[in-house]
Amino acid sequence: EVTGRAAERIDMVVDHVRELAGVDAAVRLESENSFPSNIGFGSSSSGFAAAALALVEAAGLDLTLPEVSTVARRGSSSAARAVTGAYSRLDAGLNDADCRSHRLDVGVSEDGFDPEEDLRIVAAHVPAYKETEEAHREAAESHMMQARTAHVQDQLVEMTDALRDGEFDRIFETAEHDSLSLTATTMTGPAGWVYWQPETIAVFNAVRELREEGVPVYFSTDTGASVYV
Amino acid sequence: EVTGRAAERIDMVVDHVRELAGVDAAVRLESENSFPSNIGFGSSSSGFAAAALALVEAAGLDLTLPEVSTVARRGSSSAARAVTGAYSRLDAGLNDADCRSHRLDVGVSEDGFDPEEDLRIVAAHVPAYKETEEAHREAAESHMMQARTAHVQDQLVEMTDALRDGEFDRIFETAEHDSLSLTATTMTGPAGWVYWQPETIAVFNAVRELREEGVPVYFSTDTGASVYV
Repeated sequence: EVTGRAAERIDMVVDHVRELAGVDAAVRLESENSFPSNIGFGSSSSGFAAAALALVEAAGLDLTLPEVSTVARRGSSSAARAVTGAYSRLDAGLNDADCRSHRLDVGVSEDGFDPEEDLRIVAAHVPAYKETEEAHREAAESHMMQARTAHVQDQLVEMTDALRDGEFDRIFETAEHDSLSLTATTMTGPAGWVYWQPETIAVFNAVRELREEGVPVYFSTDTGASVYV
Repeated sequence: EVTGRAAERIDMVVDHVRELAGVDAAVRLESENSFPSNIGFGSSSSGFAAAALALVEAAGLDLTLPEVSTVARRGSSSAARAVTGAYSRLDAGLNDADCRSHRLDVGVSEDGFDPEEDLRIVAAHVPAYKETEEAHREAAESHMMQARTAHVQDQLVEMTDALRDGEFDRIFETAEHDSLSLTATTMTGPAGWVYWQPETIAVFNAVRELREEGVPVYFSTDTGASVYV
């Protein structure tokens, strides 16, 4: 039984599908995670992406994945990206024609690295409660928000180009830098909320030591204490 | 025997005193710390402040403390503030008449808190090398530097007013927030340098738990892993 804000978000997704399909049927939604939620591992993203796809199919709609992403983003923005998968970008927009996720073109680098096939992710789970919406509210009130918003435009151009060329270091250097920028913005919000934990920093240190030894590895945190390596 | 950049900084201080006094005497400077250096505990600040005072006296100059602060800042900016002590502000300026440190007016709050007498500091030493000049270079190249510079003006006005009224929470909330802003700016520089260590975050967590229990306590980091509580 889901209640509160989570239930509201589910209702927004379900109601949108009802509207698109012109149906008014009751829905029973069952969801199971193979990993814990609210820890920065994308349980909302994957859950809402799966729900959007299932609901669209149940309603008999024939939609492309970018179209399904407009349904999923009613649940969470990252769910929209999870619908199209791999390296996806959710464009800003005030309507469903503009605001949708699409896969970015990914190339293979000169030395044969394929970002879609050859990437290996180690997820370091650091137990600490996280609430993405709360983090976003904090960040929005930070004195650094404008600087971040401006900088993100450069980062997106950089990332899109790096993916096209399959350049490992450029792609993940940009990702690491952006996750530091996100944390910097959130922790300078009114609550001064540092969502990293001691173990988070320990993983950063390990990653940087490996990198100094020549291992091609980068870290990234979402709005939580867990780290993707 | 001091060499390299440290020796250059000492030379700048010594040469400035020679110039002020119109003397050209050789100088032997001996310095001893009762605590380790390069860990974020202000060894440069206190060392250069002491050196500036000693050199000024040895040269027979009769200067006010704000005037001595212009000598000390040749060594490090925080040394200028250490000369005038307590709650000091180093004004920006392009010459020694403008760019000097002065004590801020401090009042006693309605409930009797005197920021100069009643403050207790616990210094949590987290061993990790720090180099303030390097941190400042990183911060200057961050996309968040402009936002920080703009925000600091508001923070200074807030702090000056809070000190005048002796308001514990306002003073140290501002200090805690500013130290997060400084870290945010440094870690979004080109090197993505996170100078906190796992123990730093552990101290943050302890401080916030105490605060939730009603204990009036705040944290602050300099450009290093150590924490002042």
